[in-house]
Amino acid sequence: MYPCTSIAEHNSMEEILKKTVVTLPTYEMRDKSPPPPESNSLEFMLFYKSLEKEQRLEFLEKLSHDFGVDHRWASDLAAKLLDTQGRDVATILQVEDRLRYSLTPRYRQLLTHISKVQGGVKFLVDLRADLIEFASSKISDSPHMRDLNSTLKSLLSEWFSVGLLRLERITWQSPCEILQKISQYEAVHPVRNWTDIKRRVGPYRRCYAFTHASMPGEPLVVLHVALTEDIANNIQGIVREFATLDADEDVNKINAAIFYSISSTQAGLQGVELGNYLIKRVVRELQSEFPHMAQFSSLSPIPGFSSWLQGALGQHKKEGRATELLSEQEWREVEDVTGTAPGAPALEALRRLIGTSEWIHSDRLIHSLEPALMRLCAWYLYGEKRRGYALNPVANFHLQNGATMWRLNWQADTSPRGIANSCGIMVNYRYFLQETSTNSAAYMQNKFIKASEQVLGLVSQFQKSSKL
Amino acid sequence: MYPCTSIAEHNSMEEILKKTVVTLPTYEMRDKSPPPPESNSLEFMLFYKSLEKEQRLEFLEKLSHDFGVDHRWASDLAAKLLDTQGRDVATILQVEDRLRYSLTPRYRQLLTHISKVQGGVKFLVDLRADLIEFASSKISDSPHMRDLNSTLKSLLSEWFSVGLLRLERITWQSPCEILQKISQYEAVHPVRNWTDIKRRVGPYRRCYAFTHASMPGEPLVVLHVALTEDIANNIQGIVREFATLDADEDVNKINAAIFYSISSTQAGLQGVELGNYLIKRVVRELQSEFPHMAQFSSLSPIPGFSSWLQGALGQHKKEGRATELLSEQEWREVEDVTGTAPGAPALEALRRLIGTSEWIHSDRLIHSLEPALMRLCAWYLYGEKRRGYALNPVANFHLQNGATMWRLNWQADTSPRGIANSCGIMVNYRYFLQETSTNSAAYMQNKFIKASEQVLGLVSQFQKSSKL
Amino acid sequence: MYPCTSIAEHNSMEEILKKTVVTLPTYEMRDKSPPPPESNSLEFMLFYKSLEKEQRLEFLEKLSHDFGVDHRWASDLAAKLLDTQGRDVATILQVEDRLRYSLTPRYRQLLTHISKVQGGVKFLVDLRADLIEFASSKISDSPHMRDLNSTLKSLLSEWFSVGLLRLERITWQSPCEILQKISQYEAVHPVRNWTDIKRRVGPYRRCYAFTHASMPGEPLVVLHVALTEDIANNIQGIVREFATLDADEDVNKINAAIFYSISSTQAGLQGVELGNYLIKRVVRELQSEFPHMAQFSSLSPIPGFSSWLQGALGQHKKEGRATELLSEQEWREVEDVTGTAPGAPALEALRRLIGTSEWIHSDRLIHSLEPALMRLCAWYLYGEKRRGYALNPVANFHLQNGATMWRLNWQADTSPRGIANSCGIMVNYRYFLQETSTNSAAYMQNKFIKASEQVLGLVSQFQKSSKL
Amino acid sequence: MYPCTSIAEHNSMEEILKKTVVTLPTYEMRDKSPPPPESNSLEFMLFYKSLEKEQRLEFLEKLSHDFGVDHRWASDLAAKLLDTQGRDVATILQVEDRLRYSLTPRYRQLLTHISKVQGGVKFLVDLRADLIEFASSKISDSPHMRDLNSTLKSLLSEWFSVGLLRLERITWQSPCEILQKISQYEAVHPVRNWTDIKRRVGPYRRCYAFTHASMPGEPLVVLHVALTEDIANNIQGIVREFATLDADEDVNKINAAIFYSISSTQAGLQGVELGNYLIKRVVRELQSEFPHMAQFSSLSPIPGFSSWLQGALGQHKKEGRATELLSEQEWREVEDVTGTAPGAPALEALRRLIGTSEWIHSDRLIHSLEPALMRLCAWYLYGEKRRGYALNPVANFHLQNGATMWRLNWQADTSPRGIANSCGIMVNYRYFLQETSTNSAAYMQNKFIKASEQVLGLVSQFQKSSKL
Repeated sequence: MYPCTSIAEHNSMEEILKKTVVTLPTYEMRDKSPPPPESNSLEFMLFYKSLEKEQRLEFLEKLSHDFGVDHRWASDLAAKLLDTQGRDVATILQVEDRLRYSLTPRYRQLLTHISKVQGGVKFLVDLRADLIEFASSKISDSPHMRDLNSTLKSLLSEWFSVGLLRLERITWQSPCEILQKISQYEAVHPVRNWTDIKRRVGPYRRCYAFTHASMPGEPLVVLHVALTEDIANNIQGIVREFATLDADEDVNKINAAIFYSISSTQAGLQGVELGNYLIKRVVRELQSEFPHMAQFSSLSPIPGFSSWLQGALGQHKKEGRATELLSEQEWREVEDVTGTAPGAPALEALRRLIGTSEWIHSDRLIHSLEPALMRLCAWYLYGEKRRGYALNPVANFHLQNGATMWRLNWQADTSPRGIANSCGIMVNYRYFLQETSTNSAAYMQNKFIKASEQVLGLVSQFQKSSKL
Repeated sequence: MYPCTSIAEHNSMEEILKKTVVTLPTYEMRDKSPPPPESNSLEFMLFYKSLEKEQRLEFLEKLSHDFGVDHRWASDLAAKLLDTQGRDVATILQVEDRLRYSLTPRYRQLLTHISKVQGGVKFLVDLRADLIEFASSKISDSPHMRDLNSTLKSLLSEWFSVGLLRLERITWQSPCEILQKISQYEAVHPVRNWTDIKRRVGPYRRCYAFTHASMPGEPLVVLHVALTEDIANNIQGIVREFATLDADEDVNKINAAIFYSISSTQAGLQGVELGNYLIKRVVRELQSEFPHMAQFSSLSPIPGFSSWLQGALGQHKKEGRATELLSEQEWREVEDVTGTAPGAPALEALRRLIGTSEWIHSDRLIHSLEPALMRLCAWYLYGEKRRGYALNPVANFHLQNGATMWRLNWQADTSPRGIANSCGIMVNYRYFLQETSTNSAAYMQNKFIKASEQVLGLVSQFQKSSKL
Repeated sequence: MYPCTSIAEHNSMEEILKKTVVTLPTYEMRDKSPPPPESNSLEFMLFYKSLEKEQRLEFLEKLSHDFGVDHRWASDLAAKLLDTQGRDVATILQVEDRLRYSLTPRYRQLLTHISKVQGGVKFLVDLRADLIEFASSKISDSPHMRDLNSTLKSLLSEWFSVGLLRLERITWQSPCEILQKISQYEAVHPVRNWTDIKRRVGPYRRCYAFTHASMPGEPLVVLHVALTEDIANNIQGIVREFATLDADEDVNKINAAIFYSISSTQAGLQGVELGNYLIKRVVRELQSEFPHMAQFSSLSPIPGFSSWLQGALGQHKKEGRATELLSEQEWREVEDVTGTAPGAPALEALRRLIGTSEWIHSDRLIHSLEPALMRLCAWYLYGEKRRGYALNPVANFHLQNGATMWRLNWQADTSPRGIANSCGIMVNYRYFLQETSTNSAAYMQNKFIKASEQVLGLVSQFQKSSKL
Repeated sequence: MYPCTSIAEHNSMEEILKKTVVTLPTYEMRDKSPPPPESNSLEFMLFYKSLEKEQRLEFLEKLSHDFGVDHRWASDLAAKLLDTQGRDVATILQVEDRLRYSLTPRYRQLLTHISKVQGGVKFLVDLRADLIEFASSKISDSPHMRDLNSTLKSLLSEWFSVGLLRLERITWQSPCEILQKISQYEAVHPVRNWTDIKRRVGPYRRCYAFTHASMPGEPLVVLHVALTEDIANNIQGIVREFATLDADEDVNKINAAIFYSISSTQAGLQGVELGNYLIKRVVRELQSEFPHMAQFSSLSPIPGFSSWLQGALGQHKKEGRATELLSEQEWREVEDVTGTAPGAPALEALRRLIGTSEWIHSDRLIHSLEPALMRLCAWYLYGEKRRGYALNPVANFHLQNGATMWRLNWQADTSPRGIANSCGIMVNYRYFLQETSTNSAAYMQNKFIKASEQVLGLVSQFQKSSKL
């Protein structure tokens, strides 16, 4: 429709914006104005898609800067609101409503209109993904861009409200298209082939996704569940176990539901709560399928533990506190196995060991490193914070949901990836259904982390032995 | 769950409200606060449903009055905004955002949370139906209630945005549940039995509905279409014609699409644009099924014409202008047929005639009344206004959509209902697809009605002959 | 395609047959012959459908007479088979196979080919319905027509084999088309309106049908089930009870499944076992839905009882044995109520009473007639036979399936129809799942009827009191 | 259910057979006998599945030998039929019917009953696969086993009659289960991964399958179609072309439908016509989707050509006719390229070349071998016969369907498999819809092969140059 050579040209940006981002109607006419023709929205979408990354940035900056709130209008109404204080309530309410209306950015209307055309919602989700990328890469972090992002986020929150989402159970009978997507999106424990994915939707497994009317066939957030006898302490038993692939489920062997992977698929929906609600819906679904089921828990990775540990070891070395993190006995083991001298050399050997994942082939090291790595990991999860909340993003997610930090599991993910990320340790965040809402509030408002005795015990060992 | 005797008691209203309408988090904590437990929303819903009509009114008044905007906070921030004028834009944007947040009524959050629980959206749609009923019956028309209504309407507008609606074609293969509902909802030309409804979804007919993810199986707005050779001028040929019930459609006989009935089913979605969008979507659908199709038109009833005419006749009589509405020749015919004296007696006879629908059995009357009733009706549709827009609601709907007032049809609905409502006259509002958006804007902004020569001719005859 | 005037002409019949009923290939070429073109089958179908009833009869007679088995060929091979006696087994098997092949009627191939074209199977089902009608009306009962009928029946039996049928549960979500058909087909307890049919697929009810790949959307046999606390003794409580229409089912109140209506919809599938298999499949279905359910029973009408009783009374009167059927006490009651003299007048009065259904409005008559009508009815069901099997067709059906004649219920169907058909009596045939196959064999092979003590008691009372 | 050790024991075979293969009812009782309990069929199935291959053979031999036709009964009735000659036709028909009945093998009933239980039809399909395997491996080729096979085949033919099959179009939206199966079954051009299969159901491709009510989710025969501008002469362009994977189809570029792969999936349905009917149904489907489409053709492999050629070369060498197959000029080229002496050495070199597929890397050889290999291949397809029909099974299939041997394509399949099987040559069998039924009859009855001028030209070149 557009000659490709010209659409991205500089001056056309302004033209397109002027044409498509129509002026806000007056307050009086706000319900009397017919929507602009659909072609407006389509033109905007087509133009934006034709732009290169840097051009998009420029375009969005213009949009957010030149088509936002009319500050003059807003301040006039603010003044008027002050004038009405003491007047009758009807007048106050009226002015408040006008003021609220005047605070609407002009581009908000455009976003709403775009949401109504075919493919519009998906377009806005992807546009927001761009905004997030620009912000996170610090290319652009203007207050106007933040305003645009937050306006768009609040619109997306309405449209992706839980009441409008559809829970779908994914099975081997689901359309191939959706199963292929789920295979691709699975970032936590990658899917290698048809048998892998068949396993994850087969007996003793459940796979659920939220989909949305505006993006049919597109799973927004995917939750993989294993149905087990006890709360699983090992991921290989879940994703690499094919014995039961054609078995019938024996309901008597199903006592626990293990959430072993949850993936969001749309970068542009960052900050729009979906995973949390998906877990809650799935719990309800499972309770109705297995009324006797009482144990719900994640089996979660601990991304970042290894690099945090490397950092901590480096820091100790630099500060000459090489011997603090492990007990004397533990250091002795390291020295023995690695044939190094005490102090810095042993510490350096330990760093190398952890860096190379080789220690996993030595039963002796596996055994001797366990207490130290477990308590360090417990501290990393429980004690390391960012703005007062858990530094580890997976922990933060489950704690926000109201889960309890329940059990650290040694040798839980012995895949190269698992060793490299977290020395093979995984953690169960357990959902005690009676407690999740109080836990969630305590965490979000008071930054209080609910943890089990095992975790608290490891943390206190760490505190005793280390002076981090 | 609640003992019925106590829940509706006076003091429990306040308790329930205090408990369920939680305080707005501070601006800083607005993204940090976990949603209140679902049970809050469920309790509110259950309580409300248990109330009688008058109790509901009382309850909503309390809600809107005591849990709205915090005026003090808003005015403080308005003052702050005035202070920041001249400061850097980041500061201004920040204060604007805080001000916007402070203008959020406290109950808005509750409404959002309710929308997320099962059946929540439907609950809110029904609650708004109550609000509208209270407002229209003038029982309650406080500014707070208007604010609540408008807050709820804007939320519903987001949730029922077109991008989230699903177009469904209803056929004889559709679930019985949905067909029964469509039969019940059809208010324009009532459905009498299975054959009637089978006809309306059979060959040479189309029936479309919008449904929504949050209310599965519930058609929100239903459009009935007849596929005809020419633009139909008669409804009986559409709803009472069963000859083609088992025929195969002959695509060569399909040149026009006649929208002969459109019904909204949810009182609580008043003001949320659905019908307009449904017509547009259906036009697209039909164009892709019948690429050669070029004529789109409604065949619409004219509710209110007869009673308006009765009123006008009464008024003329009272004002002693008995002879104005008809020409001399026309009055003579009436006098002849009814055996009455000229002037008031003839006018009275005419009123009676129209009131009883008996004239329809006299070919002579049918013939002699046609010119007068047609020009009166044209005036009623084109000239009678309410706040500048067409008084007749059906006309107003199609004119807003950008249709042209195209043709009045004599003897178009000879059912008792049709005679009683509009002396058997129906009107085509025609959709010229190239023009609808300009027509719509001209009507909504400048109150300009696009009409055909036939209609304008009748109007001008009326203006010449009558001095209404 | 055919000019209607000429197709049905006499000589064209022979032409059509000669053209479409191709010669059987030789035994050697039987797998080498390509099927005739589809147009052959279509021509035959079109021609047949264009014929009037009497022409169809003539046409089928020609088909069956002139295009059947080649008797000469068959007898030649029969002779050859006799010659091979004593020869090696391979030779014998070969001749047997040739003989079997020679006994194939030539029209059998045509029927098979028709079954392969679109709508072909349905065509053959309807053609067989014609055959059955001709046979039953004795218009034509030639041995050739019987052969054609039996050939077609055996083909239909293969195609409608249970393994090829699909069990569908019909609900209020099923396509309207199928629910309308089910309403129409329901002959036992007619469906009056939407609410009626909604009731029969709603809570505490199940409706199942067999459908077949070759006739999509067409239920072949329909079974209505009520889920009750005890074995129901009254039909009005099932089909006229709307209290639970929107209730949720309480699984604790479901102890029994009552088959209260079973209807075959295709006259042409007479003799092809479907109902029997449907009941068995449904029992399995219900057992898996309600594992604790242990009672399965019909609640069946007794068509023909009233007219049998009228006949019996007439016979007694004629034979001057007026007083035999009732006890002295019972006659006295009749005389009292009707004010008639003993003997023939009383008997005549009784006949009239039963004929008019008026007795149902007299509590006294209801009470006094009960013992006599119950034991007469028991005898009718248990003792009256046709070729050794139960005369009553419903009884015969359930007994063939292996059910037990379990309980007669007084005042079980008080609808006018129920009173007129069977004096309001209904019967439960109960399915004891462990016994059905032995019961069925005992009935079919030895004509033995399994009945409960209640039924046997009534029969023995009848035998004592009456000398029918 | 069965102790595994004992079920396969010798004497239990006879017991199982005696128990489950019940005696045929007498002619008079044939409609009066209730079916044996389902458990009979289930027991037979379970037992058979528990057997090892050799035990199955023994078991089936017993079944076919001891539970077949009652020869004495049949010969008695044959004698009776001879006696009735000259009697009235009713008597003759009666005896014929009895004779026909007596020729039913006793096991036929069992097979019918098995078909009615869940999974029964699939069991019989697999059982017949065993029978076919036994027969083809010459382990067992008794006349009784042949009878059993032919009885079972005729039953399967009824059950898998075309009217009972469902055509399904397979797309990327189809259940993953079915797509995985189709990937596995594709034997002609193997599917390597998700992208491969996505390609084969994507734009410009169609994939159709027949499924059957008794084996849900199981495609029985699968046809892959490419939609092209011209009749394709190369398979890599079809299965390795991904450029259009996400394109929209341009209907103007679709003039031809190329059947490039057809696979039967059930060994046990050998001889039951499915592929033929699938092609016909798909042609109808495509004609209704693309009314202007006029070219239908296969692009078929030529399995067996290379080995036939090897054999022919070997034969020539042995017979000292080394120089016959190629022209002098052609031999010279071979000698040049391979550096061999004329005569036997050159022929040996040629054999080796063809055996190793190396020649494909030499443009010169590709060029110089083309005429010879093309005419040899044309002869192989057209001239080589088995019992008078084309030796090549793919050719035989399409010729039976009425296709024309239309075009040989050089370098049409350059995959290793294609070179190894047929020197890279493929052939189009073209379907001229007006001719297929006459072609089919001419081929099947008179063994006449319809071929194009190109093919006939090559054949005649071969005949001139070679003295095979």
